[in-house]
Amino acid sequence: MELKELITSVENFPIKGVLFRDISPLLKSPEALDFISNEFSKKFDLNNVDYIAGIESRGFILAMLLAAKTNKGFIPLRKAGKLPPPVVAESYSLEYGKATLEMQKGQGNIVLLDDVLATGGTLVAGINLAEKAGYKVLDVGVLINLTFLNQLQFNSRKIVSLVEY
Amino acid sequence: MELKELITSVENFPIKGVLFRDISPLLKSPEALDFISNEFSKKFDLNNVDYIAGIESRGFILAMLLAAKTNKGFIPLRKAGKLPPPVVAESYSLEYGKATLEMQKGQGNIVLLDDVLATGGTLVAGINLAEKAGYKVLDVGVLINLTFLNQLQFNSRKIVSLVEY
Repeated sequence: MELKELITSVENFPIKGVLFRDISPLLKSPEALDFISNEFSKKFDLNNVDYIAGIESRGFILAMLLAAKTNKGFIPLRKAGKLPPPVVAESYSLEYGKATLEMQKGQGNIVLLDDVLATGGTLVAGINLAEKAGYKVLDVGVLINLTFLNQLQFNSRKIVSLVEY
Repeated sequence: MELKELITSVENFPIKGVLFRDISPLLKSPEALDFISNEFSKKFDLNNVDYIAGIESRGFILAMLLAAKTNKGFIPLRKAGKLPPPVVAESYSLEYGKATLEMQKGQGNIVLLDDVLATGGTLVAGINLAEKAGYKVLDVGVLINLTFLNQLQFNSRKIVSLVEY
């Protein structure tokens, strides 16, 4: 299955000069959802994985897809102020200003998922946060890797992706 | 399975006087996720349903859970400015100020899901938005219904819920 055929490219969204990759048509297709979870299942060793964790908010979609299809638990990494205390927090830089992710403490092995890997700031913060919260991050994956914006390697960790631009 | 045993109650979150129902422990349990999708599947007639739609962002979690377990497509109702144009929008009142949901146009039969039903403002906006976008909303459901804050009926539409307080 060619996932790119179900991803729409929208020029100048959300700001001028950005080519936005819209996964909405893909999410509407049950066959594509099956394909995505199967591909992730092949690329990760899920035998020792307890939870699939997703970064708010489109990471929730991918993480719950894989969790539901493979009978794993789901854990959210949320924007600041959304999860009740006690939480662990990790801040990271955006192009303008900062953002913070929060997570509840816990233990076990997780796979961390997000929708798109751009510069990697969010994903690195997510990895650091999950480890700080007490989890062991066995694998990290995204649906789309915008390879021209990053190096594919974070702390010698390979990022699994299903679509590359 | 008693879902309430996996829901934590947190006093004075996110603001003083509010008792927050935290579904994080429930989402970590594969058995609970199975149970939730099975209960929703019993309460909805999914035979004629094309898509499960979820309201950003915790509605995404529930909607993708049901979509993945029942082989349906997924559709997001997003906060303003997140979906590329063309979109249809619906604004609604919050305690202070307004909020807007957006959705892409389409057709087919959907079930609309969110995590919590409080006063119902978000859910009513979601129903109106989905119909305005071209979809037929066959059923509406939430994981938790805070019944003391609402009337359970919207435009003579019954709201399915799995946990009530």
